[in-house]
Amino acid sequence: MSHNIFGHMFKFMTWGESHGPAIGCVVDGCPPNIPINAEDLQVFLDLRKPGKNRFETQRRELDLVKIMSGVFENDEGVQVSTGTPISLIIENTDQRSKDYGEIKNQFRPGHADFTYQAKYGIRDYRGGGRSSARETAMRVAAGGIARQIIKDIKITGALVQMGGLKINYDNWDDDQISQNPFFCPDAEMVPKFEAYLDKIRKAGSSVGAILEIRASNVPAGLGAPIYAKLDQDLASAMMSINAVKSVEIGAGEAAAALTGEENADQIRLDNNGEPVFLSNNAGGILGGISNGQDIIVRFAVKPTSSILTKRQSIDKFGKEVDIMTKGRHDPCVGIRAVPVGEAMMAVVLADHYLLNRAQIG
Amino acid sequence: MSHNIFGHMFKFMTWGESHGPAIGCVVDGCPPNIPINAEDLQVFLDLRKPGKNRFETQRRELDLVKIMSGVFENDEGVQVSTGTPISLIIENTDQRSKDYGEIKNQFRPGHADFTYQAKYGIRDYRGGGRSSARETAMRVAAGGIARQIIKDIKITGALVQMGGLKINYDNWDDDQISQNPFFCPDAEMVPKFEAYLDKIRKAGSSVGAILEIRASNVPAGLGAPIYAKLDQDLASAMMSINAVKSVEIGAGEAAAALTGEENADQIRLDNNGEPVFLSNNAGGILGGISNGQDIIVRFAVKPTSSILTKRQSIDKFGKEVDIMTKGRHDPCVGIRAVPVGEAMMAVVLADHYLLNRAQIG
Amino acid sequence: MSHNIFGHMFKFMTWGESHGPAIGCVVDGCPPNIPINAEDLQVFLDLRKPGKNRFETQRRELDLVKIMSGVFENDEGVQVSTGTPISLIIENTDQRSKDYGEIKNQFRPGHADFTYQAKYGIRDYRGGGRSSARETAMRVAAGGIARQIIKDIKITGALVQMGGLKINYDNWDDDQISQNPFFCPDAEMVPKFEAYLDKIRKAGSSVGAILEIRASNVPAGLGAPIYAKLDQDLASAMMSINAVKSVEIGAGEAAAALTGEENADQIRLDNNGEPVFLSNNAGGILGGISNGQDIIVRFAVKPTSSILTKRQSIDKFGKEVDIMTKGRHDPCVGIRAVPVGEAMMAVVLADHYLLNRAQIG
Amino acid sequence: MSHNIFGHMFKFMTWGESHGPAIGCVVDGCPPNIPINAEDLQVFLDLRKPGKNRFETQRRELDLVKIMSGVFENDEGVQVSTGTPISLIIENTDQRSKDYGEIKNQFRPGHADFTYQAKYGIRDYRGGGRSSARETAMRVAAGGIARQIIKDIKITGALVQMGGLKINYDNWDDDQISQNPFFCPDAEMVPKFEAYLDKIRKAGSSVGAILEIRASNVPAGLGAPIYAKLDQDLASAMMSINAVKSVEIGAGEAAAALTGEENADQIRLDNNGEPVFLSNNAGGILGGISNGQDIIVRFAVKPTSSILTKRQSIDKFGKEVDIMTKGRHDPCVGIRAVPVGEAMMAVVLADHYLLNRAQIG
Repeated sequence: MSHNIFGHMFKFMTWGESHGPAIGCVVDGCPPNIPINAEDLQVFLDLRKPGKNRFETQRRELDLVKIMSGVFENDEGVQVSTGTPISLIIENTDQRSKDYGEIKNQFRPGHADFTYQAKYGIRDYRGGGRSSARETAMRVAAGGIARQIIKDIKITGALVQMGGLKINYDNWDDDQISQNPFFCPDAEMVPKFEAYLDKIRKAGSSVGAILEIRASNVPAGLGAPIYAKLDQDLASAMMSINAVKSVEIGAGEAAAALTGEENADQIRLDNNGEPVFLSNNAGGILGGISNGQDIIVRFAVKPTSSILTKRQSIDKFGKEVDIMTKGRHDPCVGIRAVPVGEAMMAVVLADHYLLNRAQIG
Repeated sequence: MSHNIFGHMFKFMTWGESHGPAIGCVVDGCPPNIPINAEDLQVFLDLRKPGKNRFETQRRELDLVKIMSGVFENDEGVQVSTGTPISLIIENTDQRSKDYGEIKNQFRPGHADFTYQAKYGIRDYRGGGRSSARETAMRVAAGGIARQIIKDIKITGALVQMGGLKINYDNWDDDQISQNPFFCPDAEMVPKFEAYLDKIRKAGSSVGAILEIRASNVPAGLGAPIYAKLDQDLASAMMSINAVKSVEIGAGEAAAALTGEENADQIRLDNNGEPVFLSNNAGGILGGISNGQDIIVRFAVKPTSSILTKRQSIDKFGKEVDIMTKGRHDPCVGIRAVPVGEAMMAVVLADHYLLNRAQIG
Repeated sequence: MSHNIFGHMFKFMTWGESHGPAIGCVVDGCPPNIPINAEDLQVFLDLRKPGKNRFETQRRELDLVKIMSGVFENDEGVQVSTGTPISLIIENTDQRSKDYGEIKNQFRPGHADFTYQAKYGIRDYRGGGRSSARETAMRVAAGGIARQIIKDIKITGALVQMGGLKINYDNWDDDQISQNPFFCPDAEMVPKFEAYLDKIRKAGSSVGAILEIRASNVPAGLGAPIYAKLDQDLASAMMSINAVKSVEIGAGEAAAALTGEENADQIRLDNNGEPVFLSNNAGGILGGISNGQDIIVRFAVKPTSSILTKRQSIDKFGKEVDIMTKGRHDPCVGIRAVPVGEAMMAVVLADHYLLNRAQIG
Repeated sequence: MSHNIFGHMFKFMTWGESHGPAIGCVVDGCPPNIPINAEDLQVFLDLRKPGKNRFETQRRELDLVKIMSGVFENDEGVQVSTGTPISLIIENTDQRSKDYGEIKNQFRPGHADFTYQAKYGIRDYRGGGRSSARETAMRVAAGGIARQIIKDIKITGALVQMGGLKINYDNWDDDQISQNPFFCPDAEMVPKFEAYLDKIRKAGSSVGAILEIRASNVPAGLGAPIYAKLDQDLASAMMSINAVKSVEIGAGEAAAALTGEENADQIRLDNNGEPVFLSNNAGGILGGISNGQDIIVRFAVKPTSSILTKRQSIDKFGKEVDIMTKGRHDPCVGIRAVPVGEAMMAVVLADHYLLNRAQIG
């Protein structure tokens, strides 16, 4: 990982600002002969795209991804990776031309305006510039490529808490996730989320959320201790997503209150003589290495700080000001983080799949 | 970060197994002319050293650190860094010579035995080998060097929850932390922790914990978005510590239940015209960059899986076995993780201090 | 350095194939507030651009660079870097639509056709795809940004040998370099190069060259031993340029025939009490660190393998074939490598300037 | 590559000063289950060890390497790598206790004294400290491990020029190399080298050399363009060796004087239908990727600057001084660089073998 580059072997670098001409990413280290085309990537981008329903910002971005390099037609006429860098670009289409006069010099509370100015002495203030969550579109695109490398692994993301409302895990049904605007796996929770978020939205407010990303059919052996542990890199990946404030693996924070007897997952053999863990407090990772169980990651997303209520802040001239964000925003930005979390799970697993192949063969 | 190397600019690589001849680390990229000597590093190592009281494993390790390179006497007769790699070694002294016959081929539940074997096809089974928390001694040593680079920053670690018992944050007193065997900042909690852990210990059981690490006097501007965010690297650093299952920044997981109005920290000016944040839900980091407030990180440590109760598992020949860990262990391994968490905070901040100096000057 | 990424702190990643829609690069880690605009970068690109005279390939590429991110107008109305990734794109405009039927499956001798196929099992055969020297345009663009970071350093590249014809170093005149189509600093040599290359060109042949890149006004102290030595990174940088077969620093290969008395540059003080080296066999670098003298790097460029003579080779079906490259090519591809060598000198020095600032301050 | 770390996947970090208690290296990323023991590594170290004959420095170092971690006995009783870091240490035994009074503050011409002081403001002046070629012993050790990973590849280093005396390539005989103190493959040249070097040695002078390192049986496909080309990494590796001033691949500098017809290696099929190159000007590398031919690298080593003749220099107080190195030195330090060059070839090839396995499988 470095400034704008993620990954050890499967690396991607993203670039672009919210209101610049385009955003993009370049994927490096992708194995050759992997089928890749824009249509397949678009499926994932469409899940993250804003404006799909009333619970999302009404910014209208088509988010159409173009492949600029690294993909070529093979002898069978299939578009495949060539092993060279895959450059992806999405043009920004809905940057409303408006007067940024005020926001230009003010630091919106809870946003990165203050810190970018403090660090760089300059910032592209339009729509948050580089710090905008718009950057996550490119993670989703990179994740789409990563998924092609680890096709046997199933990745499932869901929203498990919105504000104070939590799903009932007993009701978890993967098939429900795509049936509602919240990526919610608990059908009973959907109308409650709907009512709750409508209230938040109408009040011009916003609310946080907790997401859970699962990966199943992960082979044992992925992860490179001590400083490229699989859980470490997942924590790094998820915490790098805009607005994320916590990351948990398996039992997570709850492990603090468990005893050793309760916590350690016991092992038996199934009828085929394969190891079966009797529980999954470990979240599929022991000593930084996958154990073959489902990888379970949860993370909390804070409420977006763009709200229609006046807030106290300062401007870059050192004057106190009151700021009220105008215009469009996500009442629960955590919802659209679900495909982003899935994408980051995919890139970490693809990366470790290649890293493991390097060392182990 | 890579296999066994941590850091961007201030890098360290650790090596060594629990029961090998020694463990060590090599620190690379340290600025020259920083006063460094073994005695100062030893202070931190002594805090992590096992066997200081009845609440810790009775393994007796002196953990005496030796500096093998990279430090030289300057013209004033002070031992300082020369800008070349600083090699640190600790000899292992209390590796009890015993029969590993059983453990050699068995996978202790909750330990990395299974996954190391699955990944590498071989493992040093003695005391957990490379996966032993003994490795963290070298993090503490590296952290001691890092602290010398960022001397103005104060780092304070504490245990804030043991099993189900939580401290009262209103009682937080930095001065209390060194006054009890638990690094507990709440004096009222100490006797309760004591009684609780005695019970756990006598039962041959273990329990988890939550730790909080704070850094104050951190300048605004540290952190390198998008993929070397300060909170991302802290999450990576803490999750890489043995047995850690969650990492939170500022309000952390609780941010999920906050509204936008509650969450975003408002800003005013103090009497000197300096920005003052009215709250610290952000944990001192916005957009991956420090904002000048205290950095607040919390993480959960699972209970050690070495307990005196029989547990179900398998061996490497694919046979079901029952395992009971014999011998010494920490009833709450989270306690000794406090100096480790502090060290990781120090290395991340020193690393980002240098990284920021590279780009910004 | 990794697959397609160059640099430690000032990193750039290039992407794109010779006949794809575009080529590009993304520069990461650039300090903020550095004046950067497309016009200034274009100056360097125009020096490398093909088709400027009869001694270069007649492929007509405008090589117009566009800045897609990372640059923003500051309060004074100047376009400056913001510290975020700078994405640069050049559209490919002169990819002649032609039948690649033969070349598609054949391995041109001396080209990377064979090895790309052997490694990746697939390749974009159009114009050499990723292995085309067209990629070097993006190095020149990145170099233009690097120069802005190290503005006090003067970088001068020149062609010092073409085929068997060598310049007379006593005639070296910086001002001559831009006065002829060969970047030749020796005016007397120009007509000889001209006559020689006309002969080569008319014969449909090609010839190699030796280039020398000098950097003056380099501060002492750049370079990070042991494995990021300044000369090491310069060797890496130059050898990564297409067709380069050797790299020398200072006296270079000739140092083998020197005695210790002849080789080691003695030091005296000038009238200001500043160190003066009495010779520069070291090429400005001792122990991997700059000593304040001019950095001197030379490298040999092999003749392009695209010639109008039939050559023996095989195709990807394992059949022997005879190949004759049709169409446009550079009779001495070394000439257009001069701005590329200058660019690589600039990126290495800017990178080490930042790296040194990180460690030393 | 970074400060003191070499490699992409097979990484090693070296540490230690010439006159400190020890030198060492830590190898990271080594595949598991590779047979490794100190005796096998010692064979290579003994080739580099000083004092074997009158043509080498009479410093008496046993250079006994100890393995501190990462190796464990497998079920068959063989010492093998476990996939964790392999720490190697060599104690310094012959640091003569002497008065460094003069050298302490003086900059020996041609040495790194001046630049280390300029960069770091402090240096371990004893025996050159970190800049001593003593560091290369650890490269040889790391190379010994690398060789175990690429056992099918044969690496052969030789000295092909000493001062102005060049071998006759027609006389090249691999078996001769170990039969003389010069690693010389041309038996006829040995007495001439002997006479020449005796003269140099008795005069208290020194002389440079050119070395050639060959690797045969290298599979096609190693190398990761554009910025981890195999020739680029070899140039980086060789130029990082102390005193090296040039690196050539295949025809090298001579390629400048070739025409396209002469230079590009034509390809035919052998009786088994395998590709055969009719020449090897490419030195086994095309487009940064190995083509299956022998890899050929040559590099020049300057004469050591430690000579018994008075030389002009300055001290760190800015005063002009005359310096004459006392004591032991290598009259042709290039000789002992042969095993170092072989080691660097081995680490680069092992590194690229793993890197290629990551991407290609």
